[in-house]
Amino acid sequence: MRQFIITGHDAPTTPEFSLDDIAGGAGRLDVLCRCVNSAFFLSHAIREDVRAHLVLGDEYTVRFEGAELRRLNPDERSTAALIRKALDARDEAIGHMPAESSPGVSLYRMGFEATLDSVAAESTVVQLHEDGDPVVDVDPPEDPAFILSDHHNFTDEEAEALAAAADERVRLGPEILHADHAITVAHNYLDTDAYTRY
Amino acid sequence: MRQFIITGHDAPTTPEFSLDDIAGGAGRLDVLCRCVNSAFFLSHAIREDVRAHLVLGDEYTVRFEGAELRRLNPDERSTAALIRKALDARDEAIGHMPAESSPGVSLYRMGFEATLDSVAAESTVVQLHEDGDPVVDVDPPEDPAFILSDHHNFTDEEAEALAAAADERVRLGPEILHADHAITVAHNYLDTDAYTRY
Repeated sequence: MRQFIITGHDAPTTPEFSLDDIAGGAGRLDVLCRCVNSAFFLSHAIREDVRAHLVLGDEYTVRFEGAELRRLNPDERSTAALIRKALDARDEAIGHMPAESSPGVSLYRMGFEATLDSVAAESTVVQLHEDGDPVVDVDPPEDPAFILSDHHNFTDEEAEALAAAADERVRLGPEILHADHAITVAHNYLDTDAYTRY
Repeated sequence: MRQFIITGHDAPTTPEFSLDDIAGGAGRLDVLCRCVNSAFFLSHAIREDVRAHLVLGDEYTVRFEGAELRRLNPDERSTAALIRKALDARDEAIGHMPAESSPGVSLYRMGFEATLDSVAAESTVVQLHEDGDPVVDVDPPEDPAFILSDHHNFTDEEAEALAAAADERVRLGPEILHADHAITVAHNYLDTDAYTRY
């Protein structure tokens, strides 16, 4: 399984935001929506063997489960609506018990570190870093987890937790990419490797 | 220069569409907006050496010129607003004379074939095809142009014109990708190659 954690520093933690203003009033939720798109969409299919975790303001995490997703569309607005619906269910997320708000979409009362810890327990954590090894030189792990940030850098605390959890440090290319583009490149790299290996 | 043509078969040809419904009533304009994002955005910069052409319903082409772009934002809605503004200027686009509607954004009264012909005259046309050569085995051309379709396949006429214009036929990986993801992968490939060559 491929996993992605994307931390949204300014992302809303309540459902009181307008779908007409997701790149403004809703704290650049557009970035996270595009990451969900990149994580799951193939031309005429959903990548079922993928799990994506959107960390909202270090308070909640919305988990998208590829094998169970039903109502996911590629555009930003409809994905933002799924996230808003997940936040609507926040009173039902108690402790580490999630609330499923639509098929394959669940809200967890977990911030960045708790989500990172739970993913790290079952994955090889890959840190994307400009000083990392070129991705083409790295043998892809079986169950990789890529940890990404929205339009801001990781906070010092996040960066520290990530450095501690990271099993590998790679770079995807010479340019620094948006998080959603990094997901697309990571997928292509893993797809191509899987294809040439078997 | 890297160029991308993306043909939008259902895309609007008049500005009478709602920014609240770009994935529905506006003929999947969301797909084209994401292509613009992928074509131009780096983490904290615009790719200046890129030109993207959105063909709208085989009637108009909106050209985005990287070196001149000013008001481009990453989200779908604001890009749709730029396209709507370009369509607002359609009475000023006469013959092959474009109308510039905002810095770096111009409307041409040109359909798919006319746009393809004009791009082919100054580029190496790369056709993405599942039976093409793996992109990693192909020496990247200096001025590549990638020709992509929205959520529909190329029409028979478009496919014929593309096959006639194509200088190379490559595949980006084993999976069939959305057009915007294909642009991201193509950029990464060209970035990495440029990096390792110099």
